[in-house]
Amino acid sequence: MNDSDVALPDAEPLAAVVDLGTALRELIEVSVTTTVHPAEVRTAADLVRQVTERLAVARRPASQLSALDDPSTGRRVFNPVSGPGNGMAPPLRLRRAEDGLVGEATLGVAYEGPPSYVHGGMSALLMDQVLGDTAAAAGVWGMTVHLELDYRGPLPVGEKLAFRGRVAETTGRKSLIVGTIALAAAPDEPLVEARGLFVLPRQEKLTTIFGGITDASGEHRPPSRATDATAVEDE
Amino acid sequence: MNDSDVALPDAEPLAAVVDLGTALRELIEVSVTTTVHPAEVRTAADLVRQVTERLAVARRPASQLSALDDPSTGRRVFNPVSGPGNGMAPPLRLRRAEDGLVGEATLGVAYEGPPSYVHGGMSALLMDQVLGDTAAAAGVWGMTVHLELDYRGPLPVGEKLAFRGRVAETTGRKSLIVGTIALAAAPDEPLVEARGLFVLPRQEKLTTIFGGITDASGEHRPPSRATDATAVEDE
Repeated sequence: MNDSDVALPDAEPLAAVVDLGTALRELIEVSVTTTVHPAEVRTAADLVRQVTERLAVARRPASQLSALDDPSTGRRVFNPVSGPGNGMAPPLRLRRAEDGLVGEATLGVAYEGPPSYVHGGMSALLMDQVLGDTAAAAGVWGMTVHLELDYRGPLPVGEKLAFRGRVAETTGRKSLIVGTIALAAAPDEPLVEARGLFVLPRQEKLTTIFGGITDASGEHRPPSRATDATAVEDE
Repeated sequence: MNDSDVALPDAEPLAAVVDLGTALRELIEVSVTTTVHPAEVRTAADLVRQVTERLAVARRPASQLSALDDPSTGRRVFNPVSGPGNGMAPPLRLRRAEDGLVGEATLGVAYEGPPSYVHGGMSALLMDQVLGDTAAAAGVWGMTVHLELDYRGPLPVGEKLAFRGRVAETTGRKSLIVGTIALAAAPDEPLVEARGLFVLPRQEKLTTIFGGITDASGEHRPPSRATDATAVEDE
């Protein structure tokens, strides 16, 4: 680590952000399961606000990408599903498999819908990411136009889950991606099946939608490919 | 507030949990936008871990409902979409309208997918909750069996969004619920349209799925109706 300002991502700024994301993830899970006295909960809230104050002294606007994000590789450190720097993200890490992407994640009580099961909408959130990353990994990035899920059985909280995505069809700017969620112990028995239609917006629409986006140096940086491929691990 | 242990929810335990949820929500948003030096980020992570340690001294298992949850009213304080005690939840608050439920929420950068827009999967997560709550509010609670979304346009981060849900059809244990997300400034121009099929599991299936669930006193408490209706505000 050095003390100079760094414009490009390097190891320590990324490691620090991942460290905070990891710590926050653990705190969220403990915060929804703690049974300590309300006075202790109040103290925790005060301490959390002190941390927030320290970090809030310098912030980027929503229109400016994090210095740790890299539009050229699609790295998105704070993605709410796959970003290790986002305390809300499990985070879901995907890797290339024979015919698409695969990955595993264990979701805690913080992700719960019905008692002891993952919130049905969480499956949708995660599958949108899996399908989108699958499209991106196949070079056919697009924005979600249609997403559809069938729920065969509930996903238990605290058990390792297996995620899969593969490209079913590609025509021009459109791609149909399919995927599943299953118990990691029984990956071939899908409990959730998903289909997503992703479309790469036309150039003029990209300009309209992302016209104001800049990187950390202030340079205009509209996404033109996978913005969320951070979850795909290089092998 | 008193110092005695309370088995039933009362005002202060709930207020304390909401206070911590609110503080965590703010910290998550600041943590993904801060531009402070990595050393400061590391300090923040250390402080967060200290808070986690304090809260981790006493915890409930996933099979035991929080003492603040009330199966008889469906209150779920830590729901990841509508629970004010969950730092991941916006939280989305819904209220009864003429033909269903409506509500508003503003999603910060922590919920971002493409730069400056809400993650497509977040719309799915939120709509699953809206549709499920709409079913529950109409007395036809069930678990998500099918969820489908059409995305007409991206939802900007940091702008107030309007959510709507209404029962389209009910037959026996099944209900088809529809809903939309729009800018609160233009609530009649949906940017996301969703349809969900919810089915109340048969009694034997409920027993199988929720056989091990207890309330905070250890009594068996399988859900038999809306478990996530916490978001519906009484008027």
